[in-house]
Amino acid sequence: MRIVVLTGGIGGARFLLGVRAHARAVGAEVTAVVNVGDDVRMHGLQICPDLDSVMYTLGGAADPERGWGRVGETWVVKDELAKYGVEPSWFGLGDKDTATHLVRTTMLNAGYPLSAVTAALCERWQPGITLLPATDDRLETHVVVDVDGERKAIHFQEWWVRHRGDVPTHNFVFRGADAAKPAAGVLDAIAAADVILVAPSNPVVSIAPILAVPALKEAVANAAAPVVGVSPIIGGSPVRGMADKCLATLEVEVSAAGVGRMYGPRADGGLLDGWLVDTSDEDARVPGVRTRAVPLWMRDEDATARMVADALELAR
Amino acid sequence: MRIVVLTGGIGGARFLLGVRAHARAVGAEVTAVVNVGDDVRMHGLQICPDLDSVMYTLGGAADPERGWGRVGETWVVKDELAKYGVEPSWFGLGDKDTATHLVRTTMLNAGYPLSAVTAALCERWQPGITLLPATDDRLETHVVVDVDGERKAIHFQEWWVRHRGDVPTHNFVFRGADAAKPAAGVLDAIAAADVILVAPSNPVVSIAPILAVPALKEAVANAAAPVVGVSPIIGGSPVRGMADKCLATLEVEVSAAGVGRMYGPRADGGLLDGWLVDTSDEDARVPGVRTRAVPLWMRDEDATARMVADALELAR
Repeated sequence: MRIVVLTGGIGGARFLLGVRAHARAVGAEVTAVVNVGDDVRMHGLQICPDLDSVMYTLGGAADPERGWGRVGETWVVKDELAKYGVEPSWFGLGDKDTATHLVRTTMLNAGYPLSAVTAALCERWQPGITLLPATDDRLETHVVVDVDGERKAIHFQEWWVRHRGDVPTHNFVFRGADAAKPAAGVLDAIAAADVILVAPSNPVVSIAPILAVPALKEAVANAAAPVVGVSPIIGGSPVRGMADKCLATLEVEVSAAGVGRMYGPRADGGLLDGWLVDTSDEDARVPGVRTRAVPLWMRDEDATARMVADALELAR
Repeated sequence: MRIVVLTGGIGGARFLLGVRAHARAVGAEVTAVVNVGDDVRMHGLQICPDLDSVMYTLGGAADPERGWGRVGETWVVKDELAKYGVEPSWFGLGDKDTATHLVRTTMLNAGYPLSAVTAALCERWQPGITLLPATDDRLETHVVVDVDGERKAIHFQEWWVRHRGDVPTHNFVFRGADAAKPAAGVLDAIAAADVILVAPSNPVVSIAPILAVPALKEAVANAAAPVVGVSPIIGGSPVRGMADKCLATLEVEVSAAGVGRMYGPRADGGLLDGWLVDTSDEDARVPGVRTRAVPLWMRDEDATARMVADALELAR
């Protein structure tokens, strides 16, 4: 069996731990198509937070407490940059991370596409699944906000890390998406998939930027494989992160049903054949989409693997 | 009084401590014209070992034990790069240093010349003198060697750090020198100088690359100010570093007289009006050059400041 997962950062990374565990048990192959909208160039370094979260988590090197970045991280480079007075100073640039970014940036500047760079980095981390960026082209999520009485578009990282999403927010724009092509390997993986899973990642800033790549969205829409999503909302709250703020900006109800309806049924030009919600949301109805309620808390790898088995069951 | 110093890395940096001390005592202005032949781009970072040695030393942040780099340095980035298996792995890339290189590389990539970048970095370090790279253009010292039975040109850093100069060595080549122009401010400083000092730096790979910039060499040759050099050789040995290996490659006698004669008298198309040697080398004679013997060991800042006073005395 071949499983393709559309996924974002930390929540997506934990979901992938369960996908990998299930896949190992049943002998399936997994390809993760990862959001690149969070990517940003800072201090000359190309930083890919979602790809790194997935890579470090599956490589056993993520920090479980902080939730992002490397375990045992140090901050000498960041402190020194601050002493030079260079901006931005609000981004969490760890020393171990810096080495990853140096390798990545050197390869990108040498002409390698991000998909090839990711494969090279994964030679160290051995994630056990194939990691692909949604696109090798530049695609950045920018956020239209009011700051100091001025309406402007800022990079997602500035909105997320610097402002904690706590500024009047009007829209999310995926810069470069219109011209972006799926990364090498993405269309083949989708065409060969037996099932496509949508991870319980932020639907607005993790999943939407992936589907903003026109040929990628078209491939998923036309895929022979069923598409099953897992709700990132449990009982009216995001499992983690700021999906509630993002959904509110788009005037989407912060609920399992709200997100399911936003994704919409495939028969109607939407994304989903199936929608897995938490048992506490068993009343959630998404017209045109098979919905099933199971325990969705990713307490540990086993619990997450059971969720994945439920999603695959729903796909049948 | 205006003092210009032609200088390289660590030995030059210590000499500059004495120049600064003397200049403060007598109210003089100091401009250091620093070798860039050691500069190298590694892991996408533009590294300027001599400028950094001078900047850190005058800024009170150099490591006095190791002799190069920052005091309290850490090595997380270097260790991580090694774990990714990327080369070169033999270069001492510290975490604090990495921040300096990130700031420098970002500014260079944004189009600022190295002289402007150096001035920006010095806003933090307040060296108390003006630091100028010899050139804003690319100039790298390459070394013609035999490695594994093959004759090839390697970067100076590879020869120095990786091989410790311990390979059959045939020549030093200053790549880019012919087309290089003096950095912004260098010609003005030389024209306005009351005296030009040549620091006791490695004559072959620290001073020669500076003078390999044609317009810079011409400016020094035609300067109204006298040029006084300080011998980097005491009693047949270099004060520090590998000047002996470099001189031997060029078949120059490893002595105060040998280096003085290599530089040669200004009257004869050479560099020097005066040549300061150690008291143990009082017999050193350089035809056409006023030679004086004084204690040359840079034991501390006071001793070095006395050397500088002696050099200025010789310049009169």
